[in-house]
Amino acid sequence: MSQTTLKHINFPKDVRELQVENLPHLAKELREFIINIVATKEGHLGASLGVVELTIALHYVFNTPEDLLIWDVGHQAYGHKILTGRKDSFETNRQLNGISGFPKRSESNYDAFGVGHSSTSISAALGMAIASKLKGEDKNHIAVIGDASIASGMAFEGLNHAGVTDANLLVILNDNAIGIDPSVGALKQYLTNVKKGTERQDNIFEALNFDYSGPIDGHDLPLLISELERLKSVKGPKLLHVITTKGKGLKQAEQDQVKYHAPGKFDAKTGELPAKSAMRQPPKYQDVFGETIVELAFKNERIVGITPAMPTGSSLKYMMDKIPERAFDVGIAEQHAVTLAAGMATQGLIPFCNIYSTFLQRAYDQVIHDVALQNLPVIFCLDRAGLVGEDGATHHGVFDLAYLNCIPNLVIFVPRDAIALRNIMYTVQLGIDFPIAIRYPRGRGHILDWKLPFETIEIGKGNCMKQGEDIAILSVGIMAKVVEEVTTDLNVSHYDMQFVKPLDETLLHSIFKTYKAVVTIEDGTIIGGFGSSILAFTSKNNYKKPVTTLGIKDEFIEHGTVDQLHKLQQLDSDSLKRKIEELLLVLVKDS
Amino acid sequence: MSQTTLKHINFPKDVRELQVENLPHLAKELREFIINIVATKEGHLGASLGVVELTIALHYVFNTPEDLLIWDVGHQAYGHKILTGRKDSFETNRQLNGISGFPKRSESNYDAFGVGHSSTSISAALGMAIASKLKGEDKNHIAVIGDASIASGMAFEGLNHAGVTDANLLVILNDNAIGIDPSVGALKQYLTNVKKGTERQDNIFEALNFDYSGPIDGHDLPLLISELERLKSVKGPKLLHVITTKGKGLKQAEQDQVKYHAPGKFDAKTGELPAKSAMRQPPKYQDVFGETIVELAFKNERIVGITPAMPTGSSLKYMMDKIPERAFDVGIAEQHAVTLAAGMATQGLIPFCNIYSTFLQRAYDQVIHDVALQNLPVIFCLDRAGLVGEDGATHHGVFDLAYLNCIPNLVIFVPRDAIALRNIMYTVQLGIDFPIAIRYPRGRGHILDWKLPFETIEIGKGNCMKQGEDIAILSVGIMAKVVEEVTTDLNVSHYDMQFVKPLDETLLHSIFKTYKAVVTIEDGTIIGGFGSSILAFTSKNNYKKPVTTLGIKDEFIEHGTVDQLHKLQQLDSDSLKRKIEELLLVLVKDS
Repeated sequence: MSQTTLKHINFPKDVRELQVENLPHLAKELREFIINIVATKEGHLGASLGVVELTIALHYVFNTPEDLLIWDVGHQAYGHKILTGRKDSFETNRQLNGISGFPKRSESNYDAFGVGHSSTSISAALGMAIASKLKGEDKNHIAVIGDASIASGMAFEGLNHAGVTDANLLVILNDNAIGIDPSVGALKQYLTNVKKGTERQDNIFEALNFDYSGPIDGHDLPLLISELERLKSVKGPKLLHVITTKGKGLKQAEQDQVKYHAPGKFDAKTGELPAKSAMRQPPKYQDVFGETIVELAFKNERIVGITPAMPTGSSLKYMMDKIPERAFDVGIAEQHAVTLAAGMATQGLIPFCNIYSTFLQRAYDQVIHDVALQNLPVIFCLDRAGLVGEDGATHHGVFDLAYLNCIPNLVIFVPRDAIALRNIMYTVQLGIDFPIAIRYPRGRGHILDWKLPFETIEIGKGNCMKQGEDIAILSVGIMAKVVEEVTTDLNVSHYDMQFVKPLDETLLHSIFKTYKAVVTIEDGTIIGGFGSSILAFTSKNNYKKPVTTLGIKDEFIEHGTVDQLHKLQQLDSDSLKRKIEELLLVLVKDS
Repeated sequence: MSQTTLKHINFPKDVRELQVENLPHLAKELREFIINIVATKEGHLGASLGVVELTIALHYVFNTPEDLLIWDVGHQAYGHKILTGRKDSFETNRQLNGISGFPKRSESNYDAFGVGHSSTSISAALGMAIASKLKGEDKNHIAVIGDASIASGMAFEGLNHAGVTDANLLVILNDNAIGIDPSVGALKQYLTNVKKGTERQDNIFEALNFDYSGPIDGHDLPLLISELERLKSVKGPKLLHVITTKGKGLKQAEQDQVKYHAPGKFDAKTGELPAKSAMRQPPKYQDVFGETIVELAFKNERIVGITPAMPTGSSLKYMMDKIPERAFDVGIAEQHAVTLAAGMATQGLIPFCNIYSTFLQRAYDQVIHDVALQNLPVIFCLDRAGLVGEDGATHHGVFDLAYLNCIPNLVIFVPRDAIALRNIMYTVQLGIDFPIAIRYPRGRGHILDWKLPFETIEIGKGNCMKQGEDIAILSVGIMAKVVEEVTTDLNVSHYDMQFVKPLDETLLHSIFKTYKAVVTIEDGTIIGGFGSSILAFTSKNNYKKPVTTLGIKDEFIEHGTVDQLHKLQQLDSDSLKRKIEELLLVLVKDS
């Protein structure tokens, strides 16, 4: 790839020196640059390819970083990063100590607002626009938001407020009819009608007092530029409806937009994905969920499945394909998803509400107020719990154990492997009279033969995994694997406690009577999580034995591979082994 | 009051036996009944008066409880309660062991869904409607939602999903142009235009695929009934726009809708409120906030104030009156409020974002993802923290310390009195480089002369309030008052720790080296809160002295007066005194 234009571009000021007629060429090179790097380094592809022209046009027309530009979610900001001083570091994207896969304020002053979760851009940009007005500054404030993200309640709240202000806010609706999965909902249908011309132009955004223009072709650079120039002089809140194609410029990415959202490695020239390994691998946890719910739902017709916009990521797609009338993708609407599940549960259905751990934060009140307070038997399946790796700080699911732990009535289960996940799903659909959160990680487990006959799991019971001496290590979830590696070498005991709530107090009494010291380990925040509950148990019962609580420290964790991050948090087997050996030394000294 | 009709009505079936022409008389008696009881027993008045006709019409037309009726928020459900078996118990409304001020599933099978927080009704009713369809049941599912509540993001999410289903869902938009305070936002303006006939009937709800009808007069019983009858045969999602007057039937309540939302005691005949006591009283905490922010904002022009729909309840109204350009009521939009504040903070403003503790649950993700992760200096003022009294389980602010405690970067301050609240507000607006949550209770403090000259508070420092022996009691917030009452009689020490995060570790080391036992007390959940952090401190530092953690137990707390509830949770001075005396006995035995 020989760049004739992009090689001269390091910052938006360089773009602004080009003639409009040369911009399409820049777009071509920028697209190639993104494809080439993502092909080998992996990352989010489709969204950024779709907004190459829009990215160039925005930096061409507006005076960034003085004008403030916010990319909702941020999957689509690779072009933005490359044009704003990060061309050379772009190959470190999503790697430990490399640049973030998302816009991030501490990384560049062109990243006006850190993003990662959807639908925050309108609120943030409005806050900035109001601030500029109060400070008497004449700036532009631009939120670029997709059609899936704008359908989330939070975006509506931002529009509803903006519409009664005279803030200088430009919302660009990047309408490609897809989020990670295809967009859903009535607003999406409405936008489709607007595009077809079958809806009047006095539309939903105009109803909310926005100056609406479009829809226009988001790949037509001269048109984009003239329209953005025009909008500069329009006062107050305004919305430009831009139609783009996700994956634009790479045939396969345009054709299979879901797969090429974040395709992993691929052939930059042909776009082909590598052939799947013939080697049998342990399943992804999401597939354990996805296959198991189908298996159970065929037998139990009260089971329903709910996902807020993650059919592929959660693998609820399997049920949506096979039992479509009982599997629901509700769009980016976590709040609604949870209360919908609560409503269903009141009528005797058994809702499996699958939400990524980090996104359940969006529905925290609904978990408390609509589910737990009414003690409704909703089954939360929290995918992507713990450290998620390359998506980084915005996406780690490390707060869940703490924020759920304080909620009365709620049972919290953390499977140590695929079999435990499968069995708890089986157990709860037999009938429970409480809500339960089941949290499991991103990626694959370690068990090949996981489809064993179902067994029930006794609620609130832990397991002794290995009997040893002196020290008992209490793990929840996949930390069991780390502990197993350690107890192979060291003669200490290992208990997989399974339930963060309720605690297995019988087992705990026996543990605290038996051992000289206890170590807890979890891949959630130490504050407020499993270890914290063990400390409360010891205090209440007046046990004086030392307890060491291991878990996620009180800091936001950046991106890197899961293994790298576990090491950094000292949650890997080497770190644990060192910790146990130190502790054994202390115990010897004290005795 | 002699009832000729209402006295024969105990359940909706009795209403259905009346002729339509007799219903207006029932409405008159029902209104009188509500006024008479609320006048002496207190409660929410205006909302229920506004829907008397609608309540009668709904139970007349629909076959409740088979048909499922959900009252959004539930402030307006007094008439519903009286007509559904709770006429005789209605005088126990909101009292300890009495009926709840909100619909509640465990109280009546006519209460299809428990409510309290706004905007849940559409999601819940849709979940029920989908369940009915799957079960092959031909039922009606009705959500009654106000114009303030429907503007919340969660309601939009419900509408957006419902619009692509064929669920038998009837949304009744109870449009009285006011929530607790007047409604705001672009949607509200739009609805006003619809009412005036200046918006086309192809409106925002039709854009979302709802069958829209109205607006109709919500006090015209025959019209309501015929329209509801007609809608029974309309398939799929439908919305009836009903115009009502909040406080209808009581002149003062119609004229001052904010004051008569929940007016306290009043004269049932004249509607007059009692004259304000001439006795000087300590201020409400909300007024300490409201007056202090005005005082500070006049001097510091970077200060802005934000409330999601609680200008009166938070007393941000004072700033909205005096400095309107810097005080924002964003409507029922907690998510937006928080991220708006984050956006403002990026531009150097100092946002005081005032949200009731229980409602911050609605913006939990935004606190983590938009504020704390970016370490933006947003100041959260969490009103109604701790036990709020008569509003009960849906409204207690008891989870905040736990759910905030696990968030990195965030500082958590709990003022023990009005002066501490005032001084922390002063301190933080001088400039901080972190976000802070300041949580304080509903109601009045105990200090008359609170407007003393400002003093700065050192971040992370606790105070010794009284020096004693053997036992140190560590309190946060208003629990200091309870401890003071105990330490008057007992020779133990009292520390007001002030900061839940960061802990004053220097002070704690000195405490754990000095005393034989430590007791913590807080009006938040024991799990994950302040006491939990003290246990983590002792474990980390290997202190073996007994720690007793007092606070809210792991259960949902019902309604009652704050004093009654504190007693039930053993957070009153008698309970604390007994606890300390027991502990002293144990210490004597052990020594």
